Amino acid sequence: MTKFDEATQAIRVDESTYDVCLDPGYSIGGPLNGGYLMAVLLRAVVDASPHEHPVTTSAQFLRAPRPGPGQVRLEQIKTGRTATMTRATLVQEGTSFIEALVTTATLGDVAPDWTDGPSVAMPPVERCLKLPDPSPGSGITLNAQMEMLFDPPTVGWLDGRPTGRPESRAHFRLAEPQDPDPYVLALAVDALPPVVFSAGMRGWAPTVDLTWHLRALPAPGWLTLIGSGRLISDGWFDEDVEVWDSAGRLVAQSRQLARVGRG
Amino acid sequence: MTKFDEATQAIRVDESTYDVCLDPGYSIGGPLNGGYLMAVLLRAVVDASPHEHPVTTSAQFLRAPRPGPGQVRLEQIKTGRTATMTRATLVQEGTSFIEALVTTATLGDVAPDWTDGPSVAMPPVERCLKLPDPSPGSGITLNAQMEMLFDPPTVGWLDGRPTGRPESRAHFRLAEPQDPDPYVLALAVDALPPVVFSAGMRGWAPTVDLTWHLRALPAPGWLTLIGSGRLISDGWFDEDVEVWDSAGRLVAQSRQLARVGRG
Repeated sequence: MTKFDEATQAIRVDESTYDVCLDPGYSIGGPLNGGYLMAVLLRAVVDASPHEHPVTTSAQFLRAPRPGPGQVRLEQIKTGRTATMTRATLVQEGTSFIEALVTTATLGDVAPDWTDGPSVAMPPVERCLKLPDPSPGSGITLNAQMEMLFDPPTVGWLDGRPTGRPESRAHFRLAEPQDPDPYVLALAVDALPPVVFSAGMRGWAPTVDLTWHLRALPAPGWLTLIGSGRLISDGWFDEDVEVWDSAGRLVAQSRQLARVGRG
Repeated sequence: MTKFDEATQAIRVDESTYDVCLDPGYSIGGPLNGGYLMAVLLRAVVDASPHEHPVTTSAQFLRAPRPGPGQVRLEQIKTGRTATMTRATLVQEGTSFIEALVTTATLGDVAPDWTDGPSVAMPPVERCLKLPDPSPGSGITLNAQMEMLFDPPTVGWLDGRPTGRPESRAHFRLAEPQDPDPYVLALAVDALPPVVFSAGMRGWAPTVDLTWHLRALPAPGWLTLIGSGRLISDGWFDEDVEVWDSAGRLVAQSRQLARVGRG
């Protein structure tokens, strides 16, 4: 079992309750990363479902949970031949932190009937950049779990040269070697720095809704994350992330609506 | 009160229950249109919220409700200064048909901090095409509620000339004159024919998850709907819709994951 598999474990108590232990290694400076939390939720949802894959997940983030024990509460809303729909709630000490609606189904290994290419071409890994390690006092532990190599202009904001539009792109894999699976994808769709950093904004950008679709099971190797946004207005912004696997397949699509940070 | 306002009314029974009457005028040949159903749900959610606007809605469609009476059941999950999160369920005779998570907030009338333009340029209204009226036996009543003028290539599938990629674009307004508001936008994001028709597929394409974000309050006049998809695979497809108002603002963004029809 890898560190990531262990950190996302959900242990069945009964058909509607799973115990989890939120790992301090996925902190973004206090709050835990939303993608990591979705991975934990989805472990419970899939374990309780007759279907194998979390095809679509809509999560609303109410509060930022702390590392430590919690529960995932499940309510199976409908089970059919093709798909199961489940409501999942992440709870700590009786308080709800994330509410999600998840449809599980079983994806086959088939060629697509029609596919678009990536919306932006990525430079190869060797021409991409690592971010500097977070300062020890930052409380940011998430970065140590992942290897990310960024398309250089999209991290220009680090040196005071934002591109002026919301965008963020990187090659991604877990630091501990592990083939990507749907849970790694749940982490990946929320792993980029907020796209608004590239538009010149800073500060924690809390997600309100993150919806993502698993479109195919990823091949082993690097994932490519392409993040972009369309509108920053009235304190709200959208962030779209496409995830492509090493075989050139679109494996996940996400969109989140988040608040612009005040930092 | 317009016909649309009347068809989407939700009457408060108590703080967690609203009575609704699903209108046969929004049928797509048996099932009712998903956007119309979301508008009904959102009337109840907003009425019960201290905030004015449904900023983000994630709806999962379990079954196709029939015209007639029903209830919206609400559970307020969190109320804060900025936003309220509500779970809303559309119920008929004790059975759940739609489950949704909705965040309400109050949007201001402010200029955007950053905005992209439309992803595709639309020809003006006078160069766009109406669809032929549905045949009387089709049971399709939705079309009579809306005026839609399509970008010609995106309805080439009607004459056996699909463009070969998932896309659909139209100017949109209600048939009965009414300024667009968030409920009209809920209808608009699900009003286009499924984008897969343009990729050469046919048949009813049931939505599994539809998530949409209200980005600004629309100006009076026509709306422009730009629909597209990225991947059709294993019986699933995605459909993105951008909605632009007559003042050139991005007012809504949606993405749905749906099943390819077998028809």
